[in-house]
Amino acid sequence: MNVYSPRLSRLIDALRRLPGVGPKSAQRMAFHLLDRDRNAARSLAQALGESLDHIGRCPSCRMFCEDEACRYCSAARTASGQLCVVEGPADLMAIEGGTSYRGRYFVLMGRLSPLDGIGPDELGLDLLQSQLASGDFNELIIATNPTVEGEATAHYLAEMARAQNVAVSRIAHGVPMGGELEYVDGGTLAHALSGRRPV
Amino acid sequence: MNVYSPRLSRLIDALRRLPGVGPKSAQRMAFHLLDRDRNAARSLAQALGESLDHIGRCPSCRMFCEDEACRYCSAARTASGQLCVVEGPADLMAIEGGTSYRGRYFVLMGRLSPLDGIGPDELGLDLLQSQLASGDFNELIIATNPTVEGEATAHYLAEMARAQNVAVSRIAHGVPMGGELEYVDGGTLAHALSGRRPV
Repeated sequence: MNVYSPRLSRLIDALRRLPGVGPKSAQRMAFHLLDRDRNAARSLAQALGESLDHIGRCPSCRMFCEDEACRYCSAARTASGQLCVVEGPADLMAIEGGTSYRGRYFVLMGRLSPLDGIGPDELGLDLLQSQLASGDFNELIIATNPTVEGEATAHYLAEMARAQNVAVSRIAHGVPMGGELEYVDGGTLAHALSGRRPV
Repeated sequence: MNVYSPRLSRLIDALRRLPGVGPKSAQRMAFHLLDRDRNAARSLAQALGESLDHIGRCPSCRMFCEDEACRYCSAARTASGQLCVVEGPADLMAIEGGTSYRGRYFVLMGRLSPLDGIGPDELGLDLLQSQLASGDFNELIIATNPTVEGEATAHYLAEMARAQNVAVSRIAHGVPMGGELEYVDGGTLAHALSGRRPV
């Protein structure tokens, strides 16, 4: 006999599908919701349902979007002439929340990774291509992650932009603010040194 | 302007109310559900709704229960004459899953903690009292946690059972299986020594 009753078992299995949640955490969450915070369970169920029904993808920047007009694709943002390419929604949020950048975005929802079957088509690069060709933008800012695959993606994107005569830039890599040289890895330090700027 | 759109914001807030989930994890979960696993989101919403509607408390053992007859309160279990008191549903699951005990249970859903306003009434001890008085049980097994409050609760429960002439036992505390004496704390070791048994 399974120790859980069928519905409890289904709830725990559903919670386990959240990223970073194992069997013990899922059980704890289920008991917490049922025992102490039924309101939280109700509002979570409702928020999930509403999000699934109303949050889609913006057809132009590929970010999650729930309104008719995507908030990241406004005319004012387009007028900046800047287009920033990021790997995922969390990266967009980080730039939007941490910097004063208010240009347009393009969310790849991944990175080039031929071994995993992720090529230009999966990242919607044809859409990006047409946006670069539209003449709306004079700078493509590449903000993919500084990993092997992120760098390969950046290289590919840079070639695309150059073919359309759009200026390309890459966000700077170097010693993070508050970091200490002593504890920074060699690769980062090499980047920081080669990317030095006159003061 | 809030960086999140309203529904996304509500979804992230709802996920944050799960135990052990902070703002970053909640954002990660929301993006994961929306981007990669919409089926998981749908089944979670459904499981939550069904659980809220159908999972209640067993009127006799206070465990979560979704059927007419609680699976932990069957006549066969009552016939064992044993009643095991645990603090929460997870403790019941641990005993049910890890041992061959197949008697009845009583789930306190907490422990005596006067400072937090948790007294005998909150733990349903009047219900336990009437079950002890019914004559169905000849042994009360106390499996509260070996914490200060758990010990106080155990003491209180033992007094209750003795007043009804029901034998009382407490699960053993000592060196865990696979543990090494060298690394076991003094309190546990003292328990293990004073609780030694002839072999």
